[in-house]
Amino acid sequence: MNDVDSLARLADVIEARKPSNGGDPEASYVARLLAKGPDAFLKKIGEEATEVVMAAKDADHGGDRAKLVGEVADLWFHCMIALAHYGLRPADVVAELRRREGLGGLEEKALRKARAREGSGE
Amino acid sequence: MNDVDSLARLADVIEARKPSNGGDPEASYVARLLAKGPDAFLKKIGEEATEVVMAAKDADHGGDRAKLVGEVADLWFHCMIALAHYGLRPADVVAELRRREGLGGLEEKALRKARAREGSGE
Amino acid sequence: MNDVDSLARLADVIEARKPSNGGDPEASYVARLLAKGPDAFLKKIGEEATEVVMAAKDADHGGDRAKLVGEVADLWFHCMIALAHYGLRPADVVAELRRREGLGGLEEKALRKARAREGSGE
Amino acid sequence: MNDVDSLARLADVIEARKPSNGGDPEASYVARLLAKGPDAFLKKIGEEATEVVMAAKDADHGGDRAKLVGEVADLWFHCMIALAHYGLRPADVVAELRRREGLGGLEEKALRKARAREGSGE
Repeated sequence: MNDVDSLARLADVIEARKPSNGGDPEASYVARLLAKGPDAFLKKIGEEATEVVMAAKDADHGGDRAKLVGEVADLWFHCMIALAHYGLRPADVVAELRRREGLGGLEEKALRKARAREGSGE
Repeated sequence: MNDVDSLARLADVIEARKPSNGGDPEASYVARLLAKGPDAFLKKIGEEATEVVMAAKDADHGGDRAKLVGEVADLWFHCMIALAHYGLRPADVVAELRRREGLGGLEEKALRKARAREGSGE
Repeated sequence: MNDVDSLARLADVIEARKPSNGGDPEASYVARLLAKGPDAFLKKIGEEATEVVMAAKDADHGGDRAKLVGEVADLWFHCMIALAHYGLRPADVVAELRRREGLGGLEEKALRKARAREGSGE
Repeated sequence: MNDVDSLARLADVIEARKPSNGGDPEASYVARLLAKGPDAFLKKIGEEATEVVMAAKDADHGGDRAKLVGEVADLWFHCMIALAHYGLRPADVVAELRRREGLGGLEEKALRKARAREGSGE
């Protein structure tokens, strides 16, 4: 199976765990987070982003890169839970990334900003 | 093209922007971030995670869900830049997510922790 | 001057930079952030928190502790801008910290949660 | 008691909870975090910063400002635990804030950067 099918299938699993779809907060972590509401899974996004940063800093100092992979997986997983809550799917994110690549817009806008920032002596 | 091919292709573009692969920091945002080193793109991960949280809170109050898609795209894009720096690819992250799903481990471990936390009166 | 007077005085400076108090977004960074609205300074809180974490990780590996002091100062400074926007002051935060210390509540509640979490095998 | 004395006294309490000073991880949350090492309290800084952002967004939509005060208190408290680990105190942070105010440097540098960023069309 390729990666996108994997993301789509994981999104299906998350979707099935929604309390409105019969997900059981006593039996499923995803169902529990979704039942608790946005603050519960949004807080995890902030926490997991911090863990990505710490694992990357450790990798800079000789730490295990597998740790970084695991933390990025945690972060993306909790993003997918948030997406599901708002009726969105990873395919929407991937489509947006593809759209930007097509436009070349991501690079251009970001570069213009980065240059200006540096020109200002940051 | 499916989603995974899209992520893989975007990873190829990022790979080509590495200064060691001829990426030009004057012409490419990705090349510039990679040339500046880890702190530059790790800081963006913290910033973009915060923007995901803000866009989600706005969506809770009637805001546009498209904003949330854009912010998650920004977050995943900067994660992919970090992965590239450490010689990793989105396929590694997707494989880790698939592995956990196969093991059922993500749900089980996370659920055990969440239950204990709630049992403690949090 | 003692520290609390310092925080109170800095809060006065921030208060004076509010556009409604005549602060000029063309002449003052604080006035500019306040004029742009909550997302502008909240995003900075996420960014500066990430910089605190990175500076701490660097200190773990022999980096300069003065960098960490500077990043915590940045974080607290942007928190104070947010507090000002909502009509709050650092004295409110300090009073809350003192109240918890008096109650012993911070330690007790947090400890109960931490123990439960570990008991669950985290 | 004024605010600075309050911060200094809280810093003393944290200092006394260091395992090397006899703090008991079984009886104190602070001792437990310090015993677990940097990643434990740094992760909390990322988590608490996210909670500050969420409480602020809620306040924008009519939520209780007292929640925001509590979250900033949590964030500053965990920053103080990190400072203690690295042999630093809140007075160091306050001194840095005072130094910048004296130099006028915080505003000037930050403003120059913000202007450049906006000039670039961000």
